[in-house]
Amino acid sequence: VGLSGLTVTFEPDGKKARVKAGTTVLQAAKEASVSIRSECGGRGVCGKCKGIIRSADAVSEMSSAEKKLLSQPEIEEGYRLSCQTRILSNVVVMVPSESRIEASKIEVYGVERKVEINPLVRKIHVELKKPTLSDVKPDLERLLEAIEEQLEIGLLEFGFDVLKELPETLRRSNWNVAVVLWNNRVINVESGDAADEMFGMAVDIGTSKIVCHLVDLKSGETVAVGSVENPQVLYGEDVVSRITYASMGNPNLNSLRKLVVDGIDKVFGEVCQKAGIDPNKVYEAVVVGNTAMHHLFLGIQPKYLALSPYTPAIKRSICLAAKNLDIDSMNPRGVVTTFPIIAGFVGADAVAAILATGMHESEDNALLVDIGTNTEIIMGNREDMICCSCASGPAFEGAHIKDGMKAVTGAIERLRITANLEVEYETIGVGKPRGLCGSAVIDAVAEMFKHGIIDYHGRFNPNGTTPRLKRTDGGLEFIIAWQNETATGKEITVTQKDIREIQLAKAAIYSGCSILMKKKKLSEKNVNTLFIAGAFGNYINPENAKVIGLIPDIPTAKIKFVGNTAVTGAKMALISRKARKSINSILRVVQYHELAADPNFNSEFINALYIPHKIIDRFSSIKKYLL
Amino acid sequence: VGLSGLTVTFEPDGKKARVKAGTTVLQAAKEASVSIRSECGGRGVCGKCKGIIRSADAVSEMSSAEKKLLSQPEIEEGYRLSCQTRILSNVVVMVPSESRIEASKIEVYGVERKVEINPLVRKIHVELKKPTLSDVKPDLERLLEAIEEQLEIGLLEFGFDVLKELPETLRRSNWNVAVVLWNNRVINVESGDAADEMFGMAVDIGTSKIVCHLVDLKSGETVAVGSVENPQVLYGEDVVSRITYASMGNPNLNSLRKLVVDGIDKVFGEVCQKAGIDPNKVYEAVVVGNTAMHHLFLGIQPKYLALSPYTPAIKRSICLAAKNLDIDSMNPRGVVTTFPIIAGFVGADAVAAILATGMHESEDNALLVDIGTNTEIIMGNREDMICCSCASGPAFEGAHIKDGMKAVTGAIERLRITANLEVEYETIGVGKPRGLCGSAVIDAVAEMFKHGIIDYHGRFNPNGTTPRLKRTDGGLEFIIAWQNETATGKEITVTQKDIREIQLAKAAIYSGCSILMKKKKLSEKNVNTLFIAGAFGNYINPENAKVIGLIPDIPTAKIKFVGNTAVTGAKMALISRKARKSINSILRVVQYHELAADPNFNSEFINALYIPHKIIDRFSSIKKYLL
Repeated sequence: VGLSGLTVTFEPDGKKARVKAGTTVLQAAKEASVSIRSECGGRGVCGKCKGIIRSADAVSEMSSAEKKLLSQPEIEEGYRLSCQTRILSNVVVMVPSESRIEASKIEVYGVERKVEINPLVRKIHVELKKPTLSDVKPDLERLLEAIEEQLEIGLLEFGFDVLKELPETLRRSNWNVAVVLWNNRVINVESGDAADEMFGMAVDIGTSKIVCHLVDLKSGETVAVGSVENPQVLYGEDVVSRITYASMGNPNLNSLRKLVVDGIDKVFGEVCQKAGIDPNKVYEAVVVGNTAMHHLFLGIQPKYLALSPYTPAIKRSICLAAKNLDIDSMNPRGVVTTFPIIAGFVGADAVAAILATGMHESEDNALLVDIGTNTEIIMGNREDMICCSCASGPAFEGAHIKDGMKAVTGAIERLRITANLEVEYETIGVGKPRGLCGSAVIDAVAEMFKHGIIDYHGRFNPNGTTPRLKRTDGGLEFIIAWQNETATGKEITVTQKDIREIQLAKAAIYSGCSILMKKKKLSEKNVNTLFIAGAFGNYINPENAKVIGLIPDIPTAKIKFVGNTAVTGAKMALISRKARKSINSILRVVQYHELAADPNFNSEFINALYIPHKIIDRFSSIKKYLL
Repeated sequence: VGLSGLTVTFEPDGKKARVKAGTTVLQAAKEASVSIRSECGGRGVCGKCKGIIRSADAVSEMSSAEKKLLSQPEIEEGYRLSCQTRILSNVVVMVPSESRIEASKIEVYGVERKVEINPLVRKIHVELKKPTLSDVKPDLERLLEAIEEQLEIGLLEFGFDVLKELPETLRRSNWNVAVVLWNNRVINVESGDAADEMFGMAVDIGTSKIVCHLVDLKSGETVAVGSVENPQVLYGEDVVSRITYASMGNPNLNSLRKLVVDGIDKVFGEVCQKAGIDPNKVYEAVVVGNTAMHHLFLGIQPKYLALSPYTPAIKRSICLAAKNLDIDSMNPRGVVTTFPIIAGFVGADAVAAILATGMHESEDNALLVDIGTNTEIIMGNREDMICCSCASGPAFEGAHIKDGMKAVTGAIERLRITANLEVEYETIGVGKPRGLCGSAVIDAVAEMFKHGIIDYHGRFNPNGTTPRLKRTDGGLEFIIAWQNETATGKEITVTQKDIREIQLAKAAIYSGCSILMKKKKLSEKNVNTLFIAGAFGNYINPENAKVIGLIPDIPTAKIKFVGNTAVTGAKMALISRKARKSINSILRVVQYHELAADPNFNSEFINALYIPHKIIDRFSSIKKYLL
């Protein structure tokens, strides 16, 4: 291409390329970095690469393929196929929306991110020349070379199963096949008449729930969502009891592995049925989960995750055929990809959270707190990230709290104490309350603190005069709902012990945040966004979270609730090569910090037990509540 | 390294390197391209990198590792460890034979080729740092990075099975392991105390026999040899009847596959037992065979090999874990590598034959004839090779010949007709003859032709007067052995029909040679070497082969008998990366020529039916026998 080339301008973007006369519009689009759909690889077969050209003289005459594939109204409007149209002089090409490879919006609740749809799974139609005595190229090479030519890629790999069936498949389909590729690997060859549907699963294996999104890999849209209880709960609700069970021997490990695989098969089956989709058209599953779930799913002994120094077996992402993991409810030759993990207690779900929030792409500093029994905290920006894990315990899920419960129907989820020390609350669903879920316990502690019912040690003020303060054998309690207000006919109260549990949990989380901020020499002022992730996070009152000192004192406007970022991150990787690639840059910049080995942890933790904190200057926005 | 560096001279080769002061002798050897053994990667542990240095002042003082690993007599003689010894001034290092990475001789009967011992399988000892709270690198990354550092390679792959066991293996062996690599893939991790033995199998799956060499991958030596009948003979002696059976359905295909796998397991078991070697120490098998055997072994439907245009399923080499092919008698994670094939009737055995004879490395033109039921012919040099296959039939194996038999005890293998038309013969083993093996039938036809008993049409001279010429209902016969000479009490004769069979077989082979020579515009004079391969080939009298016109008229001094080149080629690939790499260059230069599609084939074949040939000028060395 000399200076004397022709200029092609692509609208509506205005991108330009300079090309030699005779270049096709499709080639020019590539040079101008304009993405135009072209499922046949430029052979004038698919008819997807439409462009509108008003100056017919500037380009070659219409080919027979175009006459066949374009409608009369289209032809009249100046529609052409980019792969068939050669450029003869300077020209403007309008790329209509149906020809564009569009980006899809991924919503992470408060955050919205655009993802280019370009999955690792591809499905293309290939028509092969039949072999003859003077062209005896073997079947596999005939197929691979045709694909390589069509896609302009090289060095394809192939599955052994594909090879074994190939002679029969090619001849049965009269040398006209649909090829499924995963990255540069041929994973399936189907008869040519197969519709070119392709789907993927984004899966979060949680300790308690397996959540799954069935995604159309062509549109990038989620077509069905499902979840099942993780069947491993048979062997304990928490991670540690499952690790303990698995560590007693390989048969135990294997039964836990089988249970989670059964759960996956169940939820895959359900979402496929819901969407009316053949499970054989599901060609990839991207799986995230905490490190223990990840190990159990792969059948790796998780014992050492629970023993100091808590070393995982593997960090990197791995990809295996579904059948090698005994997953029956997708194409057996489809690929199961596990997200990489960061450390024993910072798992694939944390990597997915970073990907979902995009904090690895931003110059701004973000703090991400994924609250759960184990809370992962990640801080930093695209240059540099640090993360840690804190054992925050199950208090926020309602466990170890006298009237605690999960955030289900009947749980008080929000409450307020009025000036005259009455309590106003909201309950999930209709009917009387049965207990308090985590967000309400936080509200209760914060409100009691604001009204001087408890002091900054978390102790009940023994001089309190409200009738809601009740003395029992176990000490003082604060009555949230009277007997006659509740579904059980018993009072709902917050005990001194409940407050201690919350203090321990919030101190663990806050001291994690604080240590990371110190390590990176950042103060609250430098944090541009605080992401709160985790199913529970969405219901927290951020003001009250700051009052009790659960999170650093960051303006509420900078706080974003982002929900289940695990499955969102998995979906992004499923539909976008670019997103998947950026996982590597996440791993390159993120550093794990082991709190157990940090010399400041103990003093930080003890200071954080106070409400909101021993060093009150760290919570200046809370000072107004201090008596 | 400036011009001011120090000079190190390595004897006995005299290779030199210029290095900075302080460089180790091992590093200097690398720069001088001198191969010195170093199994620990230069850590002063294995004690294999010995060098003799007479001028002690020119190098650093002896390290404690050296004092520990060298014997007193060695120290007195000036032995040092190259990895421990730093160069202080110009020095001469004698590399003793035990420290050299030697090349091994591979004998292909007449031919002898040197192969550097550098197998794809490697076994190294790795000592890992234990993880601590401040070093929580996951197990897999810890292992791979240590290997990458030790071997100075990058981007290792690993087997999923290896990963699954890794946490337990590393801790059980106290972080001190033996790692088995195949190419850049970790295929096994063993406890550190495992002896560093490693073995491989070179396997030729023949239609009638499976031949196997058990090879020590450290020395490159064959330590045991074995063979079994191919159990597929149950379904027919020849390739076509097995293809026919397999083509009737996948259960049939699978039972043939299982049979050959059973045969392989049997012969692997036998050779391991013979050599007293643990089958788990066999980490690779390199498999060759004709295309049909290759397909059946892999479980690929071979139906289309027998249907025009005879297209194979795959050309390239493939590598699979032994357990994926159900092979039980080697390490299940070991690798089975199949040689690539060239065409439907020019298989992996032909590629191995080229590799074994080295014709792909020579500037000289060679002609290789691998005689069997199907005869493969390859012609050319390192620039350019052409090959074809001819259906020569089983006549040379004794089939379709009245008194024909295989070359076993009791077979006449050589014979001569004297001036007074008496017959002198040699029999295999002791005792009276029972029949004629292929080489004797060739001798018989040639000798009868020389003495005018048959004419150039292959017809018996009806005016012959010798009492050995016998008239039967089926026509004339020539008596090789009288009734009283034989073990059966019946005459051994050569019939008119036998001569016709030989004429058909030899015409097929000769016309293949002739067409390839024509295609490449080469005459007999340009052929520097004629390799005759195949078990049968070794017993042929080359003069008589020319008299009957089986092979082109090339001086006997240029003819080399090379035996079973299939297993030799497999062994070369097994022990040498360089040999394996050169397979690719073979595939690049070798062209397949389909005789069935050659317009000259019919006329060539018909002319070649004459003895030695219709165009007698092609056999000037034979003219002396013409009456």
